[in-house]
Amino acid sequence: MRRTDYEVFDLGDFALQSGTTLRGAKLAYKTHGSLADDRSNAVVYPTWYSGRYWENEWLIGEGMALDPTRYFIIVPNLFGNGVSSSPSNTPPPFDRARFPHVTLYDNIRAQHRLVTERFGIERLRLVTGWSMGAQQTYQWAVAYPDMVERILPFCGSPRTSDHNKVFLEGVKAALTADTAWQRGWYDTQPWTGLRAMARVYAGWGFSQAFYWQERWRDLGYTSLESFLVGFWEGFFLDGRDANNLLAMLWTWQRGDVGATPGFDGDTERALASITAQAIVMPAQKDLYFPPEDEEWTVSHLRQAELRIIPGVWGHFAGGGLNPEDTAFIDAALKELLAR
Amino acid sequence: MRRTDYEVFDLGDFALQSGTTLRGAKLAYKTHGSLADDRSNAVVYPTWYSGRYWENEWLIGEGMALDPTRYFIIVPNLFGNGVSSSPSNTPPPFDRARFPHVTLYDNIRAQHRLVTERFGIERLRLVTGWSMGAQQTYQWAVAYPDMVERILPFCGSPRTSDHNKVFLEGVKAALTADTAWQRGWYDTQPWTGLRAMARVYAGWGFSQAFYWQERWRDLGYTSLESFLVGFWEGFFLDGRDANNLLAMLWTWQRGDVGATPGFDGDTERALASITAQAIVMPAQKDLYFPPEDEEWTVSHLRQAELRIIPGVWGHFAGGGLNPEDTAFIDAALKELLAR
Repeated sequence: MRRTDYEVFDLGDFALQSGTTLRGAKLAYKTHGSLADDRSNAVVYPTWYSGRYWENEWLIGEGMALDPTRYFIIVPNLFGNGVSSSPSNTPPPFDRARFPHVTLYDNIRAQHRLVTERFGIERLRLVTGWSMGAQQTYQWAVAYPDMVERILPFCGSPRTSDHNKVFLEGVKAALTADTAWQRGWYDTQPWTGLRAMARVYAGWGFSQAFYWQERWRDLGYTSLESFLVGFWEGFFLDGRDANNLLAMLWTWQRGDVGATPGFDGDTERALASITAQAIVMPAQKDLYFPPEDEEWTVSHLRQAELRIIPGVWGHFAGGGLNPEDTAFIDAALKELLAR
Repeated sequence: MRRTDYEVFDLGDFALQSGTTLRGAKLAYKTHGSLADDRSNAVVYPTWYSGRYWENEWLIGEGMALDPTRYFIIVPNLFGNGVSSSPSNTPPPFDRARFPHVTLYDNIRAQHRLVTERFGIERLRLVTGWSMGAQQTYQWAVAYPDMVERILPFCGSPRTSDHNKVFLEGVKAALTADTAWQRGWYDTQPWTGLRAMARVYAGWGFSQAFYWQERWRDLGYTSLESFLVGFWEGFFLDGRDANNLLAMLWTWQRGDVGATPGFDGDTERALASITAQAIVMPAQKDLYFPPEDEEWTVSHLRQAELRIIPGVWGHFAGGGLNPEDTAFIDAALKELLAR
């Protein structure tokens, strides 16, 4: 269900790392809570691959770490997600297959303008996010170290690993194998491709043990096939546009904090430059952001703790579906915010 | 490169578990070595998903466990692999999209006829195989317990797990998203779909750490993309037919020794009925036959040892590409054969 209760920050003509200017660029965002008079209570919580701002709200609530009665929580929408500027909502000539390539750094630069220009915020108590939201979290900490006090990236990495790129190649190949995709110039969605993409994703999103234990029953499904159709195909048919998905996939595949200006591709140096306190939370059985990768990340951070989310939910441990995983993440957020 | 140095066992009108009769069914096989006068030195080594008999030969050789100077090694081709009866080589009306569904039990029943009728063999020293070859190994041991003395299934399971089924759904969806597939009635291969399938497979076949360590360099590739095209797309374009791949995929998804007549779907009882000595060898980082699944298998076998193939090659630890993994498997085969 599409929601419209968001605000828009007009970026004007926004020059991208690629060299293209995204004219009339729009960063859509949603806020929760009130900004304190001294502007000291701001949190940024970016969206994930294909996620929209309302799909972040499971981690926000009174009594939770992200408590809108205490914090001013800004949820910026990733470019390409269909709410911020995207292939699906940009007028010609930069619409659909011609939507320019946007990097994670471009996203964070836009979010930085929102935070500083619209709200006059100079310090962020916390940046946190799931998956590509975690990647944006790292990108924030590298691009604006003096501004970011704490980070809690969950189920995401500062650099998209080669295996992760390959997994995404499979996803992309399935979507674009559908002739109805028409290289992005479709008038109706390539439904077969979207459903194929969903089935490819299904094996990656949850762990082997999740399926062995039939934990999809926890989500109210009564057979494996009904889960594949109801959850996975439903997920990718829920207002998600093929060109948008491909645009965000491009962003994801190129994710690397080393690509931040000034670091010349040196990911390790970029990580070492982070001054924020960090709790880094991969999920135990995440198949595309495996914990071993985040061990590597933490080894390059100054003050970071690796805290693995236990259990069988794999990548979707960070998706808000399993109350135990949500409680585990929330507890870590509380602890980090209290430091 | 297609080879033709194989023999054919004519099964005649071969009734399948599905109820369909595969008329003029042909089981293609290749033998290595000579059958002893007392017929006591036979080994069966079935092929894997999409593999042809010549792609098993890396594990056969003088001085190796599968030594053709000592053993009579029979390599039967899986139905659907393009050498035995398959969609691509069966005359109308059971050709292409109408090729009947074949189970692993059907395969083993056909192989049993070959072994007993053509060669008069009553005991098998060993059945071994990789992946779907491992699944056939288990199926042999359940269907003909009095005949199978030893089994060494590597990187495969007695029952296709739900996660494995889901992984295959993704593979299938990518292939069939290509409109050129035409529900199996193509005149030329659906190339886009085959390449999409290859890219989906690429993330599953090797582990995350394999890609992190760029172990594709061991195989002579100079970039990740050249590995995806050269190895993976090349793999699925190498004489592999879309309908054949779908036929074998059907067989794989339904793999379950519990479906052997007499066990009424009870996989655990079927496993407990195995009398063969077993060394069960999953690969440490296999993403679709993970070691934890084979721990479960071994817990239901009477006399079995779990011996995990270490390292980062994932499922393809059993594919003969990495000399260390091959040596590890070979050593276990020698040990088992010496018992």
